[in-house]
Amino acid sequence: MKTNRIEAFSDGVIAIIITIMVLELKVPHGDNIAALLPLVPVLLSYVLSFVYLGIYWNNHHHMLQTCSKISGSILWANLHLLFWLSLVPFTTAWMGENNFAAAPTTIYGVALLMAAIAYFILQQVIIASQGENSMLKMAIGNDLKGKISPVLYIIAILFSFWFQWISIGLYVLVAIIWLVPDKRIERVMQSV
Amino acid sequence: MKTNRIEAFSDGVIAIIITIMVLELKVPHGDNIAALLPLVPVLLSYVLSFVYLGIYWNNHHHMLQTCSKISGSILWANLHLLFWLSLVPFTTAWMGENNFAAAPTTIYGVALLMAAIAYFILQQVIIASQGENSMLKMAIGNDLKGKISPVLYIIAILFSFWFQWISIGLYVLVAIIWLVPDKRIERVMQSV
Amino acid sequence: MKTNRIEAFSDGVIAIIITIMVLELKVPHGDNIAALLPLVPVLLSYVLSFVYLGIYWNNHHHMLQTCSKISGSILWANLHLLFWLSLVPFTTAWMGENNFAAAPTTIYGVALLMAAIAYFILQQVIIASQGENSMLKMAIGNDLKGKISPVLYIIAILFSFWFQWISIGLYVLVAIIWLVPDKRIERVMQSV
Amino acid sequence: MKTNRIEAFSDGVIAIIITIMVLELKVPHGDNIAALLPLVPVLLSYVLSFVYLGIYWNNHHHMLQTCSKISGSILWANLHLLFWLSLVPFTTAWMGENNFAAAPTTIYGVALLMAAIAYFILQQVIIASQGENSMLKMAIGNDLKGKISPVLYIIAILFSFWFQWISIGLYVLVAIIWLVPDKRIERVMQSV
Repeated sequence: MKTNRIEAFSDGVIAIIITIMVLELKVPHGDNIAALLPLVPVLLSYVLSFVYLGIYWNNHHHMLQTCSKISGSILWANLHLLFWLSLVPFTTAWMGENNFAAAPTTIYGVALLMAAIAYFILQQVIIASQGENSMLKMAIGNDLKGKISPVLYIIAILFSFWFQWISIGLYVLVAIIWLVPDKRIERVMQSV
Repeated sequence: MKTNRIEAFSDGVIAIIITIMVLELKVPHGDNIAALLPLVPVLLSYVLSFVYLGIYWNNHHHMLQTCSKISGSILWANLHLLFWLSLVPFTTAWMGENNFAAAPTTIYGVALLMAAIAYFILQQVIIASQGENSMLKMAIGNDLKGKISPVLYIIAILFSFWFQWISIGLYVLVAIIWLVPDKRIERVMQSV
Repeated sequence: MKTNRIEAFSDGVIAIIITIMVLELKVPHGDNIAALLPLVPVLLSYVLSFVYLGIYWNNHHHMLQTCSKISGSILWANLHLLFWLSLVPFTTAWMGENNFAAAPTTIYGVALLMAAIAYFILQQVIIASQGENSMLKMAIGNDLKGKISPVLYIIAILFSFWFQWISIGLYVLVAIIWLVPDKRIERVMQSV
Repeated sequence: MKTNRIEAFSDGVIAIIITIMVLELKVPHGDNIAALLPLVPVLLSYVLSFVYLGIYWNNHHHMLQTCSKISGSILWANLHLLFWLSLVPFTTAWMGENNFAAAPTTIYGVALLMAAIAYFILQQVIIASQGENSMLKMAIGNDLKGKISPVLYIIAILFSFWFQWISIGLYVLVAIIWLVPDKRIERVMQSV
């Protein structure tokens, strides 16, 4: 299987996930601005998840660019990542509709954590498939962002039982850390 | 990142937005023509938004055609535009289901205004990335349409508090102004 | 704009339309086979519309294959066709949920008729753009299918006020007429 | 019609099917973990169907790779397969929401069986179109998996009337059998 096919499929799935999330922004019954108020937390969590999915789309692309061939294990590691991302619309809506209550904020973090783990697994599977001089391995270097994110998610999950706003702050923080596009891979690819 | 990948992703998202809008056209319970009557405003606002998304898809494509390389800032400026477009199904349904009442008509215009601003930002980011002899800069020229549209949106938003039909008329007017496909970019590209 | 971009966008929209139709097949509350019974007409109308959209996807592709360049008018004639196709999930669900009652059966036919007219307009716009030796014009020949279909839709719409099953029969008949893939275009293209 | 267009369309439809399934994971009203409990069977059936659709996407791709030309009959055999796959979100949700009750478990198996038959038909149509030295025919060999799966589905359907958990076990078993990516086709293609 060629790289562009798995890319096109992943792009399609991520494009759909990012778009159907907005279906959870249910049209209110009232026709005045006040009717929009209960939607504010839903909209905020939508913005956060939109940014996360944008980050995943972007970095996922850079990662796959280093692959010339897609093995069966890469394919399934990729589907595993898409599975966890596909749960984001659900966790986003539950958190938003419940005004960032404890349990939904926990579950939102769990889904992010699982997606991060799935991303890490996919990364390792690709590196293993590329052998000793793996371009991806060179590119990610010490992979500081990749190592810090799950730690921050776990801290956020722990805080979510008592102080949800610290958890939300941490989710936002991880997004900001990643928002800087991952130029490491681009750099290494150009130098090769 | 190559232009065709950001194009394919944007196409996917716009195709999904334009299509899920129709999900807001809820199947009525009655089985007679009268049951369709309450849907007329929903259908009309759907038509308007369908045309707007068609315009964005078309012009977006022409704009990206002038790019040979996609930087991180172009990518995020593009996601920013897609974010505001993704809210169109919501604002369309709210306006249609409330028969063009004041608040929904205001919010519909706000979403259009934000999308126009996001489009302008994307345009500026691309021009900046192309340097002095920017093909896009030459192509848009004085960018009359791009400058007039936000002004008309703001006027429409102000009118929406008292005379919604004037606002709707202005939204329709902006769509008509843009319906003429943007031949400026095509012209410049052919002359280069 | 190149042919492959308008094709990819149209494919995306048709793929989404054909798939979200199934969302109207609402999960029943009961857990026995009897709970599925009310869904039978919904499923039947889904099958019919699925076939129609498959036919449009197929013939649309053959038609666009004859174009080397997409003008603004082709683009908007194409969006016009997609608009009417996008209403098919709505008309399908309304007809299915009301057990092929008069009004929904009428409206189903109206949407098909409008899509057929939009297809005809797109065809004429492409032929006009291709000039005297239009490949598409040669390919469609006397366009018997294209001329007979709207007539049959109109007859079906008239019958729908009193004898809905005749209308349904006519909708099925038109689908069967078109099911034979349109080999005319393929033939002419190969001979050129 | 070229192979890549039918592939892109099928990819699009499968990507949408796999993603809209998650819409059936309805956001619960409560804001505590207990509110998620009723969703556990829905999530489990979602996981199972996600894996099935991943398998279909993967093997479908390998199968089409052996085709250089798409005839009308291949196209309709493919749409037939997509039709049965499009019912999976419905059968998945019905089974999950009813906690693997008898009838939904039966219907889930029927949809899988019909998809397997549709896949088999598509395979035969492609082999027939390739003539005597069909690459696909060589690739599938005795097609043990393809022959065993429908048998296991039928056994599962029979068991579903009394012992649903055996049926579920069999559905899981078939998924596991197929999870190993179909290397037969890759092998034959490389040897040619």
